[in-house]
Amino acid sequence: MRFDPASLTYDDRGLIPAVAQDHRSGEVLMLGWMNSGAVARTLETGRVTYWSRSRQSFWAKGETSGHIQRLVEMRLDCDRDCLLVLVEQTGPACHTNRRTCFYTAVREGTETELMAPAP
Amino acid sequence: MRFDPASLTYDDRGLIPAVAQDHRSGEVLMLGWMNSGAVARTLETGRVTYWSRSRQSFWAKGETSGHIQRLVEMRLDCDRDCLLVLVEQTGPACHTNRRTCFYTAVREGTETELMAPAP
Repeated sequence: MRFDPASLTYDDRGLIPAVAQDHRSGEVLMLGWMNSGAVARTLETGRVTYWSRSRQSFWAKGETSGHIQRLVEMRLDCDRDCLLVLVEQTGPACHTNRRTCFYTAVREGTETELMAPAP
Repeated sequence: MRFDPASLTYDDRGLIPAVAQDHRSGEVLMLGWMNSGAVARTLETGRVTYWSRSRQSFWAKGETSGHIQRLVEMRLDCDRDCLLVLVEQTGPACHTNRRTCFYTAVREGTETELMAPAP
């Protein structure tokens, strides 16, 4: 079946969550949001492009930092209301300069930082 | 720092997305939603518990199917508005009887099913 971004289920803001995963290591890097235009741009350009909720504009990941995400494969879930993007991540994915945004674990009720920012 | 579920950032419905990942294989299994009560229950019981948006009730994953998710570790992202739960998944995570909900890939513009339901 031909894939049409309009066939996905978006929330009342017109957005769908997209989980970015390193295609080699399997590490979950971040969760971003896309609208149908961002889904189309991601597929067309091969560069993962989100919708910035704060700026209300397209956000081609890495356009200022250089920390781009090259799309390896886009997947959708059974309900068509969530995306998984397998990516090749250049540099850190997180704006704090860490590899992943999920660097804080809850261990025995306490927040534990798993990694420091890259030097 | 002591972790408090109330310190997370929830959306206007009081929900936060939670990405479930197989703690051994790294496979991303599903995305569910939690409210602060579900976050607390997940940590207290060690059984991943979501908030069902359709039923408007707690949903201890696997309570009817037996396909439970034992919590191995909860992580939060830099913005505190998304969770990653590393789990030990019993049976398929998806209600379609597949290991993961993300069984459809977009390849050359076409939807491609990556796996069949378990027999």
